[in-house]
Amino acid sequence: MRLKRTHTCGELRVTNVGETVNLNGWVGSYRDHGGVTFIDLYDRWGITQIVFDPDHSHEAHKIAHTLRGQYVAAVRGEVKARPEGMANPNLETGEVDLYVTEFELLNSSKTPPFDILHAGSVHAETKLKYRYLDLRSPEMQQRLIFRSKAVHMIRNYFIDNEFVEIETPILGRATPEGARDYLVPSRVNQGKFYALPQSPQLYKQALMVSGFDRYFQIARCFRDEDLRAERQPEFTQVDIEMSFISSEDIITHLEKLFVKLMKELKGIDITSPMKRITYKEAMLRYGSDAPDLRFGFEITDISDVFQKTEFGVFKGALSRGGCIRAINLKGYSKQLSRKDLDELTPFVKPMRGKGVAWIRMNEDGPQSPIIKFFSDSEAENLYKKMDAETGDVIIFLADTEKIVSQCLAAIRSHFAKKFGLIRENDFAFAWVVDFPLFEADDEGNPTPTHHPFTAPKPEDMHLLDGSKEDLLNITSDAYDIVLNGSEIGGGSIRIHDHVVQEKIFSILGIGEEEAKEKFGFLLDALQYGAPPHGGLALGLDRVIMILLGTNAIRDVIAFPKTQKATCLMTDAPGTVDEKQLEELALELFVLDEDEEEEDEDDD
Amino acid sequence: MRLKRTHTCGELRVTNVGETVNLNGWVGSYRDHGGVTFIDLYDRWGITQIVFDPDHSHEAHKIAHTLRGQYVAAVRGEVKARPEGMANPNLETGEVDLYVTEFELLNSSKTPPFDILHAGSVHAETKLKYRYLDLRSPEMQQRLIFRSKAVHMIRNYFIDNEFVEIETPILGRATPEGARDYLVPSRVNQGKFYALPQSPQLYKQALMVSGFDRYFQIARCFRDEDLRAERQPEFTQVDIEMSFISSEDIITHLEKLFVKLMKELKGIDITSPMKRITYKEAMLRYGSDAPDLRFGFEITDISDVFQKTEFGVFKGALSRGGCIRAINLKGYSKQLSRKDLDELTPFVKPMRGKGVAWIRMNEDGPQSPIIKFFSDSEAENLYKKMDAETGDVIIFLADTEKIVSQCLAAIRSHFAKKFGLIRENDFAFAWVVDFPLFEADDEGNPTPTHHPFTAPKPEDMHLLDGSKEDLLNITSDAYDIVLNGSEIGGGSIRIHDHVVQEKIFSILGIGEEEAKEKFGFLLDALQYGAPPHGGLALGLDRVIMILLGTNAIRDVIAFPKTQKATCLMTDAPGTVDEKQLEELALELFVLDEDEEEEDEDDD
Repeated sequence: MRLKRTHTCGELRVTNVGETVNLNGWVGSYRDHGGVTFIDLYDRWGITQIVFDPDHSHEAHKIAHTLRGQYVAAVRGEVKARPEGMANPNLETGEVDLYVTEFELLNSSKTPPFDILHAGSVHAETKLKYRYLDLRSPEMQQRLIFRSKAVHMIRNYFIDNEFVEIETPILGRATPEGARDYLVPSRVNQGKFYALPQSPQLYKQALMVSGFDRYFQIARCFRDEDLRAERQPEFTQVDIEMSFISSEDIITHLEKLFVKLMKELKGIDITSPMKRITYKEAMLRYGSDAPDLRFGFEITDISDVFQKTEFGVFKGALSRGGCIRAINLKGYSKQLSRKDLDELTPFVKPMRGKGVAWIRMNEDGPQSPIIKFFSDSEAENLYKKMDAETGDVIIFLADTEKIVSQCLAAIRSHFAKKFGLIRENDFAFAWVVDFPLFEADDEGNPTPTHHPFTAPKPEDMHLLDGSKEDLLNITSDAYDIVLNGSEIGGGSIRIHDHVVQEKIFSILGIGEEEAKEKFGFLLDALQYGAPPHGGLALGLDRVIMILLGTNAIRDVIAFPKTQKATCLMTDAPGTVDEKQLEELALELFVLDEDEEEEDEDDD
Repeated sequence: MRLKRTHTCGELRVTNVGETVNLNGWVGSYRDHGGVTFIDLYDRWGITQIVFDPDHSHEAHKIAHTLRGQYVAAVRGEVKARPEGMANPNLETGEVDLYVTEFELLNSSKTPPFDILHAGSVHAETKLKYRYLDLRSPEMQQRLIFRSKAVHMIRNYFIDNEFVEIETPILGRATPEGARDYLVPSRVNQGKFYALPQSPQLYKQALMVSGFDRYFQIARCFRDEDLRAERQPEFTQVDIEMSFISSEDIITHLEKLFVKLMKELKGIDITSPMKRITYKEAMLRYGSDAPDLRFGFEITDISDVFQKTEFGVFKGALSRGGCIRAINLKGYSKQLSRKDLDELTPFVKPMRGKGVAWIRMNEDGPQSPIIKFFSDSEAENLYKKMDAETGDVIIFLADTEKIVSQCLAAIRSHFAKKFGLIRENDFAFAWVVDFPLFEADDEGNPTPTHHPFTAPKPEDMHLLDGSKEDLLNITSDAYDIVLNGSEIGGGSIRIHDHVVQEKIFSILGIGEEEAKEKFGFLLDALQYGAPPHGGLALGLDRVIMILLGTNAIRDVIAFPKTQKATCLMTDAPGTVDEKQLEELALELFVLDEDEEEEDEDDD
């Protein structure tokens, strides 16, 4: 490089006028005007207009005509102030031009498969295949630079608070943590497999037993799940663990961290202490354990109003142990058409909702297809309980608690969006606490709500020896942090007593043998002076996504995978040599090459 | 926890006398003295002596006798100054005692399998199995805390210099970068495999094409190699890449970084600019491309002295294209016995050295088993060239250049250690530059000295079209950083011209088809406006190891693997269910359970 840059493309100002400088960057837009050529030269830091004027340099001007978009250029020239009235106020460098005297072509470029600066409507697959070009857009650059800044602030916070950053292995041991593990066959120990970690959970607990006291890691984690839009096979979590603490300590640190992040990254003051809601309350009032608190439309249980109802649908739901719950869309009657209301029933169908009822509180009295089934006192109690006034619309569901909650939670969000109640830069944080330690699986057996290392609250410890119903009533010392209706992190105080841990395994039907094989070292470690400890993991990708106001996780990851877990840029996963498999003592089921796409049922 | 700590175990001073405080920690040593019990309570921050005095609290004193080493305790008590003359100057808290008034047992402990505080001679395997206990030793804690600090400083350096930290995928695509990949079978795309990255090389080059300009990452990398003591299957590298730069920019940043690290972590001022040595010079003068510059004993080529020798060994070596080289152990004659010298021949045998000759420069003239074969002028020229004076010892080898270099490099280190020339806290940094782009493989064909993306120096570019000999004479724009005889990092300016990159692949015998399959996206990316770029990767584990003055990589990794690539703590790798393999369309070669340890040759 002959003309190595002296300044970036975002740096020149009026104060530089008269200086001779070098810039390096990419050719953006190109304009010819009265024999003079104007080119936007850009890099990560900005855009500078460079001018090829035959009066300035005949040589350079001739070259200007050979340049194309995305060519890489080095130029030398003189900084000049733009003529009066020609400054571009949208550009930080908009008050100057660089008049080119020397030129060096650093690289040419084929015509890109899409317009990098206007790629909004380009097919996602094309952008992923040419990810290196998609990442050249100022938008994607700013997102990843934002992420880098955020991560640095997070690390600074924990380092400043005497946390030790410790790297835990990626080649680990398979543990049953809910999702499927990615496996790595071992060559040196044929027939055995490493597993990529779903989280560093066991290692960080080991580190607490070691006395590190305060640990953190920005940790890569892996889950071989069938992917939803918000998930990636590998994701990053901010992983922390502390000793000799209570859940309050974890909560306080996270709140301080988010106060700082929101202030420094977004210029927004958020309130601390944050709102806290128990799991039960969240499920009741918002129908979700990750409630969106940016708007109201809270849910009210009105089962008691209809205890003696003769209305078949309500009566049936209650007799089957279900409930009736409702939302008041306060004052929104005029903004809702009959069609809006009728569409709710198909809307809840995917969530197994069988129907949605409504009452419109008109000036001339309530209007509803079902009100005729209510007794006067039922109607009266209902209006009272729902605080129903003229202009309101009450939305009802009667079904199992699970279905009612899920449907009403979706309806809340649906109307909040419809009525424009979700404003940009509105960030509603909350803690959800007092989760049940266990939930019932399909056979009614207790299964961990979080993971099997979560401690019960001390006051519920005795219930571990109780009935199945007792077990399902145990409250855990777990806490989730929620932002705008998404769970962005969760954690708990862990079990530090090996007797309790063994009891939990036994409740979960993990036999002594199995527990020993899978968690042997943890059970051992708990017997050698394990301190009380607890921690939390934050879903970094999701946090960044929400802070940036984007809906796609791939917007905040440099090289994301598709929903089929492939990388379209590198074409991973790929085929491997027979010889490599032999070294691993593995063979593939015989796959007909033409049928590769089909499912295998070769067992 | 009733008695949550108000202070750490390393915090109390004379200024706290009279205060009532809580401490939490582990029980260390235990002493009874005149009815009073003294216990060292410790945590990550230090040790405080806590006193159970029946006059202070009868209850607490009774409990003291039930405590054992590594029990976890919370205590409340009064800080008292130690009596005159009883202070412990070795302990930061040594001027005070805590007189316990309340006690809470947080956890008991079985007797640990080894004495955590004195584990020096404990078998390595035992310490790895109980790694969580080994990590409780102050020594291991300080090492990992040092590492955390160093990593934070490194990140701060790059962030302060506008580098963007970007995470690249762990689930990547297999590429032939010398070592064997770890593979991850894909479930969703059966028959295909991800590979764990040996380095983020291709991704970081893609990021330069994207215009990120300055990238860094503390990146986990993986190599499925047969392990040597210094290697782990997974390791961490400080990975950087820059655009629009020359090798000088990379070198300058790294020097600034190390000046800062050495100053802030070790209190040592190192010199920048660091010494630079060409590859040729390093091989000639030190016999190694990672020369140890903490001591002299430089190598001199004396082949020219013996061009016409009649001495068979020398004559033979020269006629086969080899060389004769020597070291002058200046002034060390008196410290060397005949035995020391005779032992050199067996010493070089593992390096394929056939023999080592020597001349001792005694006061009564030179003494040597081979001097009788030299002509007078040969001897005279030799002494002159070697600056041989009374009291010196000259050490010779005649063989191929490779063997001579390797043996003399080992002999240099051997005597430097023997004569105590390697002082603690002596850190000799240097750059090795001007590496050949290719080296000859066993068949004499060019193979990359670094990796196939390394750029030739511009002045040698034309040789790419030359003969095999021309190719082997190309100098690359690559640079290694060396510390105390270890390569701690290396990098290069990369090829940014796709025509040159394709030419390199073709020279390496990577056909168009294969190149397209393996590096297709890089070849594409280079055609869409790739800027000139280059970078470097530092071996973090090794850097930390050298700065801490330890010889074992496992001393600086929290959960290392054995040389058999197993984790003795978690027992990884482990067996997996048949069902998991079925989902991956894989099956194991039929292994007789009893023969699992044996090699498989089932093909």
